[in-house]
Amino acid sequence: MTSREELLARAARPAAEALRLHPFYRGKIQTAPRCPIRSLEDFAIWYTPGVAAPCREIQARPERVWAHTNRGNTVAIVSDGTRVLGLGDIGPEAGLPVMEGKALLFKHLGGVDAVPLCLGTRDADELVRAVEWLAPSFGGVNLEDIAQPRCFRVLERLRATLPIPVWHDDQQGSAVVLRAGLLNALEIVGKRLDGVRIAMIGMGAANVAVLHLLRTHGVEGAQIVACDSRGILHRRRDDVEAKRELFPDKWRVCTETNPDCTAGGIAEALRGADVCIAFSRPGPDVIEPAWVGAMARDAIVFACANPVPEIWPWDAQAAGARIVASGRSDLPNQVNNSLAFPGIFRGALDVRARSLSDGMALAASEALAGVAREAGLLDDRLLPHMGELEAHVAVAVATGLAAQQEGVAALSLGREALASGARRRIQEARALSALLQREKLILPPPGEAP
Amino acid sequence: MTSREELLARAARPAAEALRLHPFYRGKIQTAPRCPIRSLEDFAIWYTPGVAAPCREIQARPERVWAHTNRGNTVAIVSDGTRVLGLGDIGPEAGLPVMEGKALLFKHLGGVDAVPLCLGTRDADELVRAVEWLAPSFGGVNLEDIAQPRCFRVLERLRATLPIPVWHDDQQGSAVVLRAGLLNALEIVGKRLDGVRIAMIGMGAANVAVLHLLRTHGVEGAQIVACDSRGILHRRRDDVEAKRELFPDKWRVCTETNPDCTAGGIAEALRGADVCIAFSRPGPDVIEPAWVGAMARDAIVFACANPVPEIWPWDAQAAGARIVASGRSDLPNQVNNSLAFPGIFRGALDVRARSLSDGMALAASEALAGVAREAGLLDDRLLPHMGELEAHVAVAVATGLAAQQEGVAALSLGREALASGARRRIQEARALSALLQREKLILPPPGEAP
Repeated sequence: MTSREELLARAARPAAEALRLHPFYRGKIQTAPRCPIRSLEDFAIWYTPGVAAPCREIQARPERVWAHTNRGNTVAIVSDGTRVLGLGDIGPEAGLPVMEGKALLFKHLGGVDAVPLCLGTRDADELVRAVEWLAPSFGGVNLEDIAQPRCFRVLERLRATLPIPVWHDDQQGSAVVLRAGLLNALEIVGKRLDGVRIAMIGMGAANVAVLHLLRTHGVEGAQIVACDSRGILHRRRDDVEAKRELFPDKWRVCTETNPDCTAGGIAEALRGADVCIAFSRPGPDVIEPAWVGAMARDAIVFACANPVPEIWPWDAQAAGARIVASGRSDLPNQVNNSLAFPGIFRGALDVRARSLSDGMALAASEALAGVAREAGLLDDRLLPHMGELEAHVAVAVATGLAAQQEGVAALSLGREALASGARRRIQEARALSALLQREKLILPPPGEAP
Repeated sequence: MTSREELLARAARPAAEALRLHPFYRGKIQTAPRCPIRSLEDFAIWYTPGVAAPCREIQARPERVWAHTNRGNTVAIVSDGTRVLGLGDIGPEAGLPVMEGKALLFKHLGGVDAVPLCLGTRDADELVRAVEWLAPSFGGVNLEDIAQPRCFRVLERLRATLPIPVWHDDQQGSAVVLRAGLLNALEIVGKRLDGVRIAMIGMGAANVAVLHLLRTHGVEGAQIVACDSRGILHRRRDDVEAKRELFPDKWRVCTETNPDCTAGGIAEALRGADVCIAFSRPGPDVIEPAWVGAMARDAIVFACANPVPEIWPWDAQAAGARIVASGRSDLPNQVNNSLAFPGIFRGALDVRARSLSDGMALAASEALAGVAREAGLLDDRLLPHMGELEAHVAVAVATGLAAQQEGVAALSLGREALASGARRRIQEARALSALLQREKLILPPPGEAP
């Protein structure tokens, strides 16, 4: 396994390359045509006077907007820049490189056209209003890097009011991928989801969503002991109760988990646990090896803090963990949102879903786990790699079918149609990228061969 | 000259083609990469973990957002769908095909990446707030198809508060192109701008802006008589005074033009006038030939209503007009905003202008007139055609130089650098479009050869 020094040296490289190459390309996405411009006469079709006819048709039959425009393949990536990556509150402008990168991922992995919108407000009500005003132009909304507790309220309100899918990737995306990895880890060690004891370390946006998704299907509150930065959550945590207005989700965790009212910190939470799910602060010293040593046999550890996991995988394994996953692409078992959101939006858009339900998230999660199982599970291969096109197709199909089962889909499409549609969109996106490079409309980095 | 019947038949064709082809392409723009994706490893540069380094740099030095992102080439096209083309208040969804078409024009003619944002609010304060929140992601804002009087207030407030250029194309774009055409028409007939009598027919967004731009440079209020739908404006128009809070611009026209307090309608306004500038309601019977016959010798008529001008050019000429212009692409002397906004934003973005001043608009207008003069003026060739790449380059250069003279530019660039930069951006956009068609990533319309 890679040594710590090697890892840190390797981690410095992308930062240096990013600082060199971002100013060379000056942005990572651009607008391209979808329709032919054979001569300027064509603008009489695409613009005035011809365009008036589609406008009139949409006015008369609003659902025709999905036929006459790209709304059905366009997603807004909305952030206020208050919790960007591990960087914290850096503001909307400084968050823009991340949202452009996310748009690039949306297109490359899901064939989805995404628009980075970093908003200059940090008020929950204003964020809600802004997204409501923006909604007529978009087929979906991906919320990103918004600080808690605001993010919960914004997501909840927009899910309730908007007629298009709304997703907060830091919550729901993480939960979908984590759950898929967990299902497969349990399969490997031969334990059942409804029988394990789970310790959750950190109660930020991601783990709140993980807990919600686990509780939605297959896990009882009694199986869970959760920790925030002040220790284990239980119903006598007066400090949490005092803030229950502001953090209702966390207070719910206090009342719905840990029935024995176990107190203490991470050490006590992990003692005897089968599974550790950590989305807390960057390590590597958040979780001590001895605590992992006190977990149950065949312990499973998800240490997802970025860029440095709460405990290095080799340390966790030396302490007795059987399976270890992290958030890093350069370590095995990456819990990576990019496995979920492209396919989930692909599927939701393709059936023109009105919302993104818990059932759709669960289905996406099962599909992701299934792809890895089909390829053959290994201790260090719980999840597909984000480069596997068929993983995204499978997620899209599962999401689209679940939307129809739940009655939130405007279109009715079978498994085959969903799969071939998703595959075509993703392949087109990759072909676009490859073509621009081959034909030098995107140049190779300075000093490098194409 | 084309007959009326031929024209109407020809005008029906784009509508039929638009209804056939919009659903075939399902949208006119998409997101494309600007940077290479050689393998998925590259996402460590474009996304996490590498992207954190540009984010941190922008947090420390906000102006680096222009180097690390595409903000400097990205414009928001913002509409509320309340005054779309000649269709009126059709709502944000029905306005989307127009804004997508506008984005296509932005890219093809100006090399500018534009994002259609049709907002679900029609309140002036809310529109202002929405655009203020959106501003951190954009290098400029193009307001479009917003009803008056709201559009005046929205433009005025955003111009005052935003640190990026804001433009209302229905006002300012029309004014820039109209003024360029007028300068050349006067050149042809040998009259001076400061000596002519001007009748303005219609006092909507476009003519309010035309009047403002003319008054900013070279035209006195005393030279102008303006008409709204109730007749000639003058300082005894009590109905306008009663609404001066809501329509302050129109009341200003009453007090600052028509010192003789001429009353009456279009007939009286045109009597003896050298120039008619009509942006009113679709004709062809708004202006009667006899009224044109009563204008001064070598009369100049701009009949800009769309899709049918206030008077057909052949009727105006038969009645004695020397030079006639309209808004139609299939008639000579098209007053077409597409001659202005791509180059104006190109130039403003390239010098990173903080605003789009009247001086920049004037300079753009002079440049546009100059391009046509260099090609040789004719009665039916007052303006360049929008397909002339060098016209857009000239407008960009003039806008960029004027921004520097006015002290609103962050970057200092000479004429040559501005020209070559603009030319390169526009050529790249055209190459992108051509490449996608040639390589069949954009298919030819069904039943047609590529």
